[in-house]
Amino acid sequence: MSRSGAIRPNSERLRTDWERLSRFRMEGLPGWTRRPFTPEYRAAREWLTGRMADAGLAVAIDAAGNVIGRREGKRPALAPLIIGSHTDTVMGGGRFDGIAGVLGGIEVARCLAEAQVELEHPLEVIDFLAEEPTDFGISAVGSRGMVGSLDAEAFDRRDPEGRTLAEAIALMGGRPDKIPGAIRRPGSAALYLELHIEQGPVLEREGLRLGIVSGITGIARYRLEIEGRPDHAGTTPMSLRRDALAAAADVVLALEALWAAGPDGSGVGTVGRLAVRPNAANVVPGFVELWAEMRNVDAERLAQKGQIFQEQVKTIAARRDVGVRIDAVSHEEPVPVPEPVQALLEAIVRELGQPVRRLPSYAGHDATHLAKIAPIGMLFVPSQSGRSHCPEEWTNLEDVTLGVQALGEALVRFDAQDATR
Amino acid sequence: MSRSGAIRPNSERLRTDWERLSRFRMEGLPGWTRRPFTPEYRAAREWLTGRMADAGLAVAIDAAGNVIGRREGKRPALAPLIIGSHTDTVMGGGRFDGIAGVLGGIEVARCLAEAQVELEHPLEVIDFLAEEPTDFGISAVGSRGMVGSLDAEAFDRRDPEGRTLAEAIALMGGRPDKIPGAIRRPGSAALYLELHIEQGPVLEREGLRLGIVSGITGIARYRLEIEGRPDHAGTTPMSLRRDALAAAADVVLALEALWAAGPDGSGVGTVGRLAVRPNAANVVPGFVELWAEMRNVDAERLAQKGQIFQEQVKTIAARRDVGVRIDAVSHEEPVPVPEPVQALLEAIVRELGQPVRRLPSYAGHDATHLAKIAPIGMLFVPSQSGRSHCPEEWTNLEDVTLGVQALGEALVRFDAQDATR
Repeated sequence: MSRSGAIRPNSERLRTDWERLSRFRMEGLPGWTRRPFTPEYRAAREWLTGRMADAGLAVAIDAAGNVIGRREGKRPALAPLIIGSHTDTVMGGGRFDGIAGVLGGIEVARCLAEAQVELEHPLEVIDFLAEEPTDFGISAVGSRGMVGSLDAEAFDRRDPEGRTLAEAIALMGGRPDKIPGAIRRPGSAALYLELHIEQGPVLEREGLRLGIVSGITGIARYRLEIEGRPDHAGTTPMSLRRDALAAAADVVLALEALWAAGPDGSGVGTVGRLAVRPNAANVVPGFVELWAEMRNVDAERLAQKGQIFQEQVKTIAARRDVGVRIDAVSHEEPVPVPEPVQALLEAIVRELGQPVRRLPSYAGHDATHLAKIAPIGMLFVPSQSGRSHCPEEWTNLEDVTLGVQALGEALVRFDAQDATR
Repeated sequence: MSRSGAIRPNSERLRTDWERLSRFRMEGLPGWTRRPFTPEYRAAREWLTGRMADAGLAVAIDAAGNVIGRREGKRPALAPLIIGSHTDTVMGGGRFDGIAGVLGGIEVARCLAEAQVELEHPLEVIDFLAEEPTDFGISAVGSRGMVGSLDAEAFDRRDPEGRTLAEAIALMGGRPDKIPGAIRRPGSAALYLELHIEQGPVLEREGLRLGIVSGITGIARYRLEIEGRPDHAGTTPMSLRRDALAAAADVVLALEALWAAGPDGSGVGTVGRLAVRPNAANVVPGFVELWAEMRNVDAERLAQKGQIFQEQVKTIAARRDVGVRIDAVSHEEPVPVPEPVQALLEAIVRELGQPVRRLPSYAGHDATHLAKIAPIGMLFVPSQSGRSHCPEEWTNLEDVTLGVQALGEALVRFDAQDATR
């Protein structure tokens, strides 16, 4: 079976969309900031609604505030195929994270319309609400809401302005009171595909234009409190100290060694946050709080290394005679990408004349949550210098265009295969 | 030669003074806080002036704001003997640091008066102004001022309330405009002796009641800026990271190893202060600022280890591909205690039936500055659990009393020996 040839994305059309969407940015803030629930975000989504309509999609906002452009298929009884991502950004973010999946999804719909292809399944192109961490302390608001992963308590959370999440969702056109009744159930979608930038350096380094995501990372986060003794930094001999920062240094290096041992792609461990008390040049540190996180796509390996890390921390604490408290603050399980979906994407990538490279995603995505209701697949396009969540975030439009083509072709092929099963 | 026997300090009298002075504390603050330039500090010094007068001393405040109680000697042409310390505390401090030297000095004067001993030299008992770090970013204001070690710019420094140091000194009865003209010159004092708590655990651990200070530590302080790259803590493989915190951990442990190698008393090295940016759990640390200090009583060793440390930092930075900037922010040279003064104190300690133990002082003192104008000597009494600069700071009054006796006897013997040279 060869490609349908129906998906012929137009990179100039994509460029125009990109330039237009990038203008919806918050003045006076660094980068291309478009935070969730702001007027700029609302304006961007209104414009997006127009672009979806122009592509022949019937646009609606669901209870969770997701903008959904729908195209009916030949067989209305089939569960829909979904493609999408998000258009909000982190503070000081860039122009590609999430945006590639949304603008790319609309381009796929345009290509289908131009080629007058009628799919068997319905198709939904979705701009999920507020994927990035919000001021409510929760991320992926729209995709969580859609699949029933928003806790009831979440709606009452308030941002620094005192607004509740429910109010913020309503402001974006959602109906928070209707979310529980509108939850999509497992099997209610036939497939979810997401095009996304890699946000890492692997593809660029290997000279590749496309990557097939093998799974989405699990994330285990630990908060450590190390309790030493704050002593005079002059009068306390080295042998009598209980230095919380020296113990923390051991922990930082132990975590690094634990994850540096394997080849790239076998997981990462990071101490990104650390604070010292009393934090004075002439006082031996008496207390350190630090956050350690580790990410792996293999659930067993993640759990196992988490165990080893905690043992190592206890050994360090015992050797240095400091107290330690370890809180396992969160544990998100990895989300595998089903092998058939990876194989489908692999076939398309090969037919497009590109080398096949499977790699894990070490960031969470809307796909993480959609996995609850459908088989998921993800395609990565390269990030220049591996940079992301910063103003310099960049991906060549030619690579995005190729990614859109691969995503669309995979969709068309899945549609035909799945409908004849 | 045996002890004069003239110095018979009264521990109950000392206890009464201690209890009275401790009451001059700042309400609502932790511990026994008596910060420089506060009403409580002024009130304490007014009370102290009375105690000095009761001991037969003629009290005056010098240009630098030091409270000086003077007792004339037989030979007015001789340079004075000086004993003293300070009565201000750090925030949340205790009841002994500095105070032992001042109350002990007054007790010596009382003993001399009771025994009707007339010294050859004049005697000055001094409560030095503001020895602890002040809100003006300077410590040992009074002893520096007395010996000409206050920079002209220091007087214009302002505290957070906008008051200048000159105004603060004037508030304490000093005459800041007269300080330059009142500087005491080298040789203008015959001897400076200071009784002080150890502020460390050595004496207690060895079951000793007295320690002879062999020298006052030099302190070299370095401020480091480590510049890595802030990357996504998920998508950046371990091998491609430039983690500023991992580099900082190497630095912390290198400094610890550099000074832990020797026996206790051979110096200390500490990273007491460290800050991470952006300091987020999911971002590889891009920047770390840390302060490293090292203390040693041997100037050559201090300089040599400072060199080694800087080389090690550069090696770490090169290996981890991070940038590093090392600022040598301050370098205080060690102050040796002249061997004859140590020998004199050793003889007295032995005659009091105590084991002789010489040990360095790893904290700075008023003696550090008085060394500019006179031979200095210091006696330590034990600190319970080695604690200092905290509410729990404690020394048995019996040990203080013994220290006062040793200090007074040393003074009497020096007076006789020096006058006959």
